[in-house]
Amino acid sequence: MGDVDLEFPAQGARCECDEAVGHGYIVDKDRYLARLKRIEGQARGIYRMVDEEKYCIDILTQVSALTSALRSVALGLLDDHLRHCVADAARAGGAEADQKFQEATDAIARLMRA
Amino acid sequence: MGDVDLEFPAQGARCECDEAVGHGYIVDKDRYLARLKRIEGQARGIYRMVDEEKYCIDILTQVSALTSALRSVALGLLDDHLRHCVADAARAGGAEADQKFQEATDAIARLMRA
Amino acid sequence: MGDVDLEFPAQGARCECDEAVGHGYIVDKDRYLARLKRIEGQARGIYRMVDEEKYCIDILTQVSALTSALRSVALGLLDDHLRHCVADAARAGGAEADQKFQEATDAIARLMRA
Amino acid sequence: MGDVDLEFPAQGARCECDEAVGHGYIVDKDRYLARLKRIEGQARGIYRMVDEEKYCIDILTQVSALTSALRSVALGLLDDHLRHCVADAARAGGAEADQKFQEATDAIARLMRA
Repeated sequence: MGDVDLEFPAQGARCECDEAVGHGYIVDKDRYLARLKRIEGQARGIYRMVDEEKYCIDILTQVSALTSALRSVALGLLDDHLRHCVADAARAGGAEADQKFQEATDAIARLMRA
Repeated sequence: MGDVDLEFPAQGARCECDEAVGHGYIVDKDRYLARLKRIEGQARGIYRMVDEEKYCIDILTQVSALTSALRSVALGLLDDHLRHCVADAARAGGAEADQKFQEATDAIARLMRA
Repeated sequence: MGDVDLEFPAQGARCECDEAVGHGYIVDKDRYLARLKRIEGQARGIYRMVDEEKYCIDILTQVSALTSALRSVALGLLDDHLRHCVADAARAGGAEADQKFQEATDAIARLMRA
Repeated sequence: MGDVDLEFPAQGARCECDEAVGHGYIVDKDRYLARLKRIEGQARGIYRMVDEEKYCIDILTQVSALTSALRSVALGLLDDHLRHCVADAARAGGAEADQKFQEATDAIARLMRA
């Protein structure tokens, strides 16, 4: 908020599912934020390692650790999304359910390839 | 420097190869730093998306993009490492060369699994 | 059937979901079988390349192609599973739904790490 | 040989490195062939599971196991390739060395994305 991050794409979309109770992940929001704060620190640490010309292999080890931390966050978000948004859509059925499944599969495909 | 990041492991190791000319990636150091600065911005953007309770799928898309950017940096560093540190070790031969190859393979294994 | 493949773990489990209409992927069963037959051919081709001592990089290219084909099959099966077994469980709710979501997330985690 | 596998791209390339002593992986050739024979059996097992309409999650587990086995073979071949072909090229230097490094990095990139 407030500060503008020009490098980051604006995200206009708002989650339309679970409107009454909020997003699935909201129950764990503080834990997600803590993990993402840590991930930001890991990214800053890698920047510093390159700046200080540390040994390449050690930098690569930290890149692997950061990638692994990101995957873990992604899996958590995906699990929450399936259990809430997708489950709701499955119960409602119809075209919206179809769209939610397609969206989830596309997201999983991107994560497996990323 | 200055600010201490307790969450990030201290990296005491210094690259012992290419001592005369510096690390392989030094020629591109500014480009690496620019990319890592951007990566840090992406991590901060994901934090903000969770904080603002954006739609899960949109967050996952940004996690995939960040993972992809990290992999690209890792591949660049690995390529530089092979062309400089590992090539030097290969020319020198002996136990040190063996160790460099083992180290590189282990790093690649971690990256493929991360 | 008939022929015993000792190297392959016996799979006693039968899908308990979608009993009336069969498994989700059944509609595409022939297409899956055709793709898996092709995958088996790719595996045999890689065996032959090593046997004939082809160039390592060319072998690695074929390993990447095979891995990519496997991922594509996995994504298809996962999508079908979510749309049928998991959707059914979501509609039924309760402990079984919980278990189906956990199972799906665990499978996605294994695929992302494999 | 003998049997023609039309689905598999012909590989005309022969390894031009290590001509005197054969390919790097030749010392382990029998072990690679045994692993690839097992991989072929795993692929056949997955075909059979789909044919017998086993539970999707169990099939996905086997796809993960096969992908993991393939990655392990790829890492072995890559390690051998770096220690032999690439090391030789590094010692020789020049344009050929450049090409070998580029080739190796491209193969690693494909494996990380596959």
